[in-house]
Amino acid sequence: MKKVVTMGEMLLRLTPRHYKRLVQADSFRAIFGGGEANVAISLANLGHESLFVSKIPDNEIGLACKDVLDENGVNTDFLKFGGERLGLYYSEEGSGVRSSYVIYDRLNSSIAEASIDDFDFDEIFKNASIFHISGITPALSKSCKELTKIALKKAKEAGVFVSFDLNYRSTLWPLDEAVKFYEEVSPYIDLCIGVIPEIHPSFKGVFNEKSLEKMFEETYQRTGIKYITSTIRKSFSATDNRLSAGIYNGRDAHFTDEIDVRVEERIGGGDSYTAGLLCSLLDGKDKNDAVEFAIRASALKHTIKGDYNLSEREEVEDFVRGKHSGRIEW
Amino acid sequence: MKKVVTMGEMLLRLTPRHYKRLVQADSFRAIFGGGEANVAISLANLGHESLFVSKIPDNEIGLACKDVLDENGVNTDFLKFGGERLGLYYSEEGSGVRSSYVIYDRLNSSIAEASIDDFDFDEIFKNASIFHISGITPALSKSCKELTKIALKKAKEAGVFVSFDLNYRSTLWPLDEAVKFYEEVSPYIDLCIGVIPEIHPSFKGVFNEKSLEKMFEETYQRTGIKYITSTIRKSFSATDNRLSAGIYNGRDAHFTDEIDVRVEERIGGGDSYTAGLLCSLLDGKDKNDAVEFAIRASALKHTIKGDYNLSEREEVEDFVRGKHSGRIEW
Amino acid sequence: MKKVVTMGEMLLRLTPRHYKRLVQADSFRAIFGGGEANVAISLANLGHESLFVSKIPDNEIGLACKDVLDENGVNTDFLKFGGERLGLYYSEEGSGVRSSYVIYDRLNSSIAEASIDDFDFDEIFKNASIFHISGITPALSKSCKELTKIALKKAKEAGVFVSFDLNYRSTLWPLDEAVKFYEEVSPYIDLCIGVIPEIHPSFKGVFNEKSLEKMFEETYQRTGIKYITSTIRKSFSATDNRLSAGIYNGRDAHFTDEIDVRVEERIGGGDSYTAGLLCSLLDGKDKNDAVEFAIRASALKHTIKGDYNLSEREEVEDFVRGKHSGRIEW
Amino acid sequence: MKKVVTMGEMLLRLTPRHYKRLVQADSFRAIFGGGEANVAISLANLGHESLFVSKIPDNEIGLACKDVLDENGVNTDFLKFGGERLGLYYSEEGSGVRSSYVIYDRLNSSIAEASIDDFDFDEIFKNASIFHISGITPALSKSCKELTKIALKKAKEAGVFVSFDLNYRSTLWPLDEAVKFYEEVSPYIDLCIGVIPEIHPSFKGVFNEKSLEKMFEETYQRTGIKYITSTIRKSFSATDNRLSAGIYNGRDAHFTDEIDVRVEERIGGGDSYTAGLLCSLLDGKDKNDAVEFAIRASALKHTIKGDYNLSEREEVEDFVRGKHSGRIEW
Amino acid sequence: MKKVVTMGEMLLRLTPRHYKRLVQADSFRAIFGGGEANVAISLANLGHESLFVSKIPDNEIGLACKDVLDENGVNTDFLKFGGERLGLYYSEEGSGVRSSYVIYDRLNSSIAEASIDDFDFDEIFKNASIFHISGITPALSKSCKELTKIALKKAKEAGVFVSFDLNYRSTLWPLDEAVKFYEEVSPYIDLCIGVIPEIHPSFKGVFNEKSLEKMFEETYQRTGIKYITSTIRKSFSATDNRLSAGIYNGRDAHFTDEIDVRVEERIGGGDSYTAGLLCSLLDGKDKNDAVEFAIRASALKHTIKGDYNLSEREEVEDFVRGKHSGRIEW
Amino acid sequence: MKKVVTMGEMLLRLTPRHYKRLVQADSFRAIFGGGEANVAISLANLGHESLFVSKIPDNEIGLACKDVLDENGVNTDFLKFGGERLGLYYSEEGSGVRSSYVIYDRLNSSIAEASIDDFDFDEIFKNASIFHISGITPALSKSCKELTKIALKKAKEAGVFVSFDLNYRSTLWPLDEAVKFYEEVSPYIDLCIGVIPEIHPSFKGVFNEKSLEKMFEETYQRTGIKYITSTIRKSFSATDNRLSAGIYNGRDAHFTDEIDVRVEERIGGGDSYTAGLLCSLLDGKDKNDAVEFAIRASALKHTIKGDYNLSEREEVEDFVRGKHSGRIEW
Repeated sequence: MKKVVTMGEMLLRLTPRHYKRLVQADSFRAIFGGGEANVAISLANLGHESLFVSKIPDNEIGLACKDVLDENGVNTDFLKFGGERLGLYYSEEGSGVRSSYVIYDRLNSSIAEASIDDFDFDEIFKNASIFHISGITPALSKSCKELTKIALKKAKEAGVFVSFDLNYRSTLWPLDEAVKFYEEVSPYIDLCIGVIPEIHPSFKGVFNEKSLEKMFEETYQRTGIKYITSTIRKSFSATDNRLSAGIYNGRDAHFTDEIDVRVEERIGGGDSYTAGLLCSLLDGKDKNDAVEFAIRASALKHTIKGDYNLSEREEVEDFVRGKHSGRIEW
Repeated sequence: MKKVVTMGEMLLRLTPRHYKRLVQADSFRAIFGGGEANVAISLANLGHESLFVSKIPDNEIGLACKDVLDENGVNTDFLKFGGERLGLYYSEEGSGVRSSYVIYDRLNSSIAEASIDDFDFDEIFKNASIFHISGITPALSKSCKELTKIALKKAKEAGVFVSFDLNYRSTLWPLDEAVKFYEEVSPYIDLCIGVIPEIHPSFKGVFNEKSLEKMFEETYQRTGIKYITSTIRKSFSATDNRLSAGIYNGRDAHFTDEIDVRVEERIGGGDSYTAGLLCSLLDGKDKNDAVEFAIRASALKHTIKGDYNLSEREEVEDFVRGKHSGRIEW
Repeated sequence: MKKVVTMGEMLLRLTPRHYKRLVQADSFRAIFGGGEANVAISLANLGHESLFVSKIPDNEIGLACKDVLDENGVNTDFLKFGGERLGLYYSEEGSGVRSSYVIYDRLNSSIAEASIDDFDFDEIFKNASIFHISGITPALSKSCKELTKIALKKAKEAGVFVSFDLNYRSTLWPLDEAVKFYEEVSPYIDLCIGVIPEIHPSFKGVFNEKSLEKMFEETYQRTGIKYITSTIRKSFSATDNRLSAGIYNGRDAHFTDEIDVRVEERIGGGDSYTAGLLCSLLDGKDKNDAVEFAIRASALKHTIKGDYNLSEREEVEDFVRGKHSGRIEW
Repeated sequence: MKKVVTMGEMLLRLTPRHYKRLVQADSFRAIFGGGEANVAISLANLGHESLFVSKIPDNEIGLACKDVLDENGVNTDFLKFGGERLGLYYSEEGSGVRSSYVIYDRLNSSIAEASIDDFDFDEIFKNASIFHISGITPALSKSCKELTKIALKKAKEAGVFVSFDLNYRSTLWPLDEAVKFYEEVSPYIDLCIGVIPEIHPSFKGVFNEKSLEKMFEETYQRTGIKYITSTIRKSFSATDNRLSAGIYNGRDAHFTDEIDVRVEERIGGGDSYTAGLLCSLLDGKDKNDAVEFAIRASALKHTIKGDYNLSEREEVEDFVRGKHSGRIEW
Repeated sequence: MKKVVTMGEMLLRLTPRHYKRLVQADSFRAIFGGGEANVAISLANLGHESLFVSKIPDNEIGLACKDVLDENGVNTDFLKFGGERLGLYYSEEGSGVRSSYVIYDRLNSSIAEASIDDFDFDEIFKNASIFHISGITPALSKSCKELTKIALKKAKEAGVFVSFDLNYRSTLWPLDEAVKFYEEVSPYIDLCIGVIPEIHPSFKGVFNEKSLEKMFEETYQRTGIKYITSTIRKSFSATDNRLSAGIYNGRDAHFTDEIDVRVEERIGGGDSYTAGLLCSLLDGKDKNDAVEFAIRASALKHTIKGDYNLSEREEVEDFVRGKHSGRIEW
Repeated sequence: MKKVVTMGEMLLRLTPRHYKRLVQADSFRAIFGGGEANVAISLANLGHESLFVSKIPDNEIGLACKDVLDENGVNTDFLKFGGERLGLYYSEEGSGVRSSYVIYDRLNSSIAEASIDDFDFDEIFKNASIFHISGITPALSKSCKELTKIALKKAKEAGVFVSFDLNYRSTLWPLDEAVKFYEEVSPYIDLCIGVIPEIHPSFKGVFNEKSLEKMFEETYQRTGIKYITSTIRKSFSATDNRLSAGIYNGRDAHFTDEIDVRVEERIGGGDSYTAGLLCSLLDGKDKNDAVEFAIRASALKHTIKGDYNLSEREEVEDFVRGKHSGRIEW
């Protein structure tokens, strides 16, 4: 067991039940999640030690949030309590031709207003193998941008393998600011999830193997990051998707099989891919085997309610070995 | 904003949850709806002013029914209170190879026993652009038949565009009586939804573009109605349908693209098509653009729980412009 | 029917089901409410015309909020759309010896950041009989303080009867600032709900008729407000309360009977008292009859889920006439 | 085991969950019940053979209704299928000071329109010990009135002990018509539940032992029925009642202890008393022991969801022996 | 109506709602079922008389189990009460690529420890046409193995047609023991559902018409059983299956059409096939028509929650006649 | 923070929702608990370090059980995985005059069949301050009896304060065997919860301060245990109880105030008293203050769903200081 550190925001997600629209809801499912937390939880469920770093308010909503991490076996020793509020968002689950969408209400959250003094990175990165963070965290606030930079630098100094999920959100910061940041921190990054957004005119995930390989190359040219990976999602409808993934190491690209998924819960699908990939790296798999494992972990996650992959490693391995018919195992 | 008037029965629908059969149900979802009410609500959600005319009992069930109209912004100034009861029906939602079905319990309802004096059509049609009613209303009772005729006549006199959804139900009246009525009122009608039922041997909706065009022509020959339209539903299973629609103007027919829908709630699918069509006419679209908009409004409605389309106009327009992948909109 | 105008914040309340604690919740009931909105809705249900003034975000959460007002027949013509977010709070329902409590998350809400230009008070108060606002609104932000003052002044100028619910919340502003504000605006106020908080050492609602009468007198001395009223709540447990109320007109006080209530939902209990009182004033009841009606309206509200009183006037009148045994009415 | 025959209407009851008001409901609990059916089911659960006679529609709603009888072990050999509809009613559950109430929608039901030829009373009463029917059945329709008379006469001729629950409902027939009917059929009746309604000015159940004894005497004088019994309900609130009962045999009256009940479901409370009484008579208990058993059966029923008493005989006997503390039985 | 007898274990199934994983569940749906009980219930719903033989504990869990049989009209005269416990199992419903699985907790159940003296087979088989039992029952315990053998022998002696569903479960007994048992009892069997497991290297249901026909032949060679039948399930995912079936009579095989099913509840799918087949045999259909009816009964069952087919015969016949589009039947 | 060790069985509790009876349930709430686990969880929530020792099956049900401990912050380092099954019980929640009851299904559970080698007590008791175990554990099986004895002895040797909850269950072992065991292990015990069962003729908890004091004395005479404590529960109904407690130290007894509780969930009420008491001892409170704290912790627990007290220490302290009115804390 090797330790993975992730850092970021954890939010409350409010989602109507049974595909109801937001305007129809008289109750919301309450799910605590967030990109980096989802990766930490999924890794813990895959059997690795993971540690999540963040700041959450010192009230019962903060405690409820922490419970989720504890229940899933994530180390919360560096979870700070304080600040104003837990960020939240409303999410409506699409169905068929109707898309899902999200309304953010995450300004002034505890992590967005956290200071660098809240975290002792020397302690945090002690014995760590991997550090993972996403491009959402630096977009939250000016202090989060600084915090992200310092964390990346400290991780690199501590000899930790650094994974960065670009995860560009136009609602949080402008494209040029984001790209500038990506380029600035690329020297600290070993694995980049996603490609530089500006190099694709319609960066809405609509690409195929060929176009993705080209984008891998360009991203590599501009950043020099050693590994670049991305999923390919063909979205026939909100409930029927086809998944695959590719990885590039500066020389050649590998693309996985395509897997049809029926979506029980879409959110967290990308994070479970990242967790599957990091799990594979910790296990010593080569890059090609790693993405085959990762895309199947992600496919399984799509069938599971909530943000996190609750699949155990054995289930994913069975899937890699061909067992995914959906038959009852008596 | 132009005013649309609709008139008809509003019923309580009792449906077991989660595709349970009626005999398994220990509770029912309670939905207030009805063809013309559904059209009024969907139009209000698309941003038009709509007014619904009916009679409902003067008790809490009547009030609950009225609340739905108010909540959705439908004008209820001409909703009369009185009479015995609100009609109702039990509906079992099919799944896969199992069909949905309906048990009516709508005799002696307030509207079925309403008298013409309950309604002041001069006031009702003041400033109205469109009047919509379905062939269910005249089938409810002798007085409803009379009421429908008078309403159609008054609408025509007031210079209002008249839309009529044939909606033939063999459980409510015999075919010959219905057809005779359709022919009698056809001079008042500008837009006919559906084709004369008797002209197709297996009038169960199983037709294609070619056969539909022929039926359009025959219906036009017999009624002289200016616009005739119909949806085409290919029902692979209770949960997977393929939708398209056609419209005919006495000269030529236009047929829309086919759209695959995953059915969250089937009931109200046709009414949302009608609402989409009337919305387009009010917006000044030509007949071909109108049905393209309408069929997409209907497709979106199939993904929404309840009888009414809660889609806003922007969503439907986005769909017309090609956005319907079901991806999350972050 | 005479028009009542209320103005204030409308929030989303998130409450776990079935007396679960916040840390246990995996879903929340979602209720849109707020002191002044609750008064407007309760008045509409009692048969009066009411109009609610506020600002809410221009998204589906704002729309869902507006739906509640529409469904209950409140005039929303002066509801502005815009701003950042809808304020919200988490509320845990107590049971027995366990108290209810609330976590606010209402900073930077649309109304807190609204400007005076958002509202046209000349139009708003046209034909209004009563204006009601609470002491929470001026505590929300500096601009809300200004907005409240202007609204009170404009109402007075328009000859409208002004009702003000002190509703002091120590978590929103300091006591001295609040009291200073109360005294500053008292010339505009005709009816004060509650007594100046500082005059009672343990202002936690624990008073009896005698002490309340004295506090009425002092409040009257300091503010000169014509009518002062307050409920008296004996809280045996979170689920068992005993209610009564008093009113003072500068000369003499009247106290109502005590009524035992079993609490289905506590929030909105005070607002339903206010609504009952304003309803009685509009109906021309004298002050003593008014509080007898109001306290029974409030008692009934405690048995109803949600923030608002859904009792019709006839129910409350029956209660005044002695019918409240809880027997089935076949 | 001795056979009890009951005959009457079975209705669908639609009740919102969790004390919601009818206007708040977006779903209803669905309970099939009715006075005489409830007695039959409760008796079956107490271990006696019971047979229920009625007519229900020949559709899935009728089947669902029959399932409840089958599941509870009631003989349904004489349940006829046919007619228009199953009668139904909406019932709002009161809480605390808010009363429960009921909206009937039971006109034109299958039983109301049944003919005497639907039932073969010679077969029905073969080997029967007791026949029970209520005063609701003759009030349903003219044919039901006739049917009731014939059934009572046939039962008497077959030497069956006849129990009749007056159950006067002013919404179904006028007082004088009801009383005339009671007097007409009294020669066939051995046990009368309730007293002649007209002899008490405020016949709303508000009486005490003394006044009840007097009413027993008068009812006896006018009808000559051998046994007359009634429960006494002190309704502190919709959720807190105090129960007792009395019985009179033409000479002396016996009154039971008073039992405090917390109401989980009020409907069926009276029917469970009747069932407890009939059970005791079948078991050979004397009249005083019979009502002590019966009132405890009824008290237990008030704690059970649904219309019927699911208590087994042992539970009631334990209660008679003093065990009703509500402690856990590990 | 001809009597079918089935005998076996009835278990409590605990399943999380809405495709949640077992580790996520805070509640379980509770379904009482078991192979032979499911067949008996499905047959009763198809209109045949059926009788279920088993032993269940003498407590409220046993009673709840019996209620299900009574509600569905199964004769429970030979259901014994006694023993330690009702066996149970946890089942997680798969979705898409995630398989369903089952955790058994059925040791020491009442039926597993029943003795032969608990059952009077002469009475049980009186007037019976068919006896059905599965290969799970002999695998439960040593005494159940004996019990199965005696029941099969007694049935044969009574001239009853014997149906046996191999239903091999490797978690209950080793393959060689099972096969030895099958061969030992084959002289008593008229209809064998499934093929000898050992003759197919990957006996996980992955076969086609050709390979199945060969396995039919081999099974026939080794057992001499007159009729051998099996379903063919193509499992694209846990929620999308394609069903067909074949039957062999020692000379020739018939295979049905393939039917696509969307799975609402997978468990009981095989039992509903068996019930459809036995229903057809009782109705005098030939073997080919019988399997066409049976596979459609099974397809419909997959759309129904719970273990049992609630389809009526008319529904299945309609399906055979081609009606399965899933359209609403108004 | 001082470490408390508890050891025992953890079971799955299956309880129908909303006071339904077991025979009415179509689903069960699933709660993992057990006396000693409940104490460990409640202590963790009160802010102390606790460690729970047990054995649970190595499957998803075992994992779900462990999740509950992790989520609540209990140390699970000595939780062994293995054995057959998790014990379970069905529990019906009483209401009013209807008692709760329990059906055990806990034979052959993993802990009942655990061996002494499964646990390394030297490691377990390292740095422990308190060891708590109940009289249920030795009653589970012969090996559990041995295990309990060894654990008690090892704890004493390690200098750990030993708490023992007699918790006599007649369904698990005979009285004389239990008492013999209590006397045998009393030298290892510092705190005894409950009194020797045989010294009170009707040991059903019906005692008052006077009789309890006498029983304390006798228990002290026979066992020599330093501290003896017990709660006093006056059970007016399943939903209304009055709680107090007493403690005895060989010289004098102290009895707490009486507290009225409205029961949300009764199970775990005693364990929360024990946890409150141990918390107080760890905090250095004297025996009288300890029971005042403990009885209030228990009172709060009765208002909380599930087996464990989720109250934080501050809430209990507030209650001790007099705040328990149930008012909203805004």
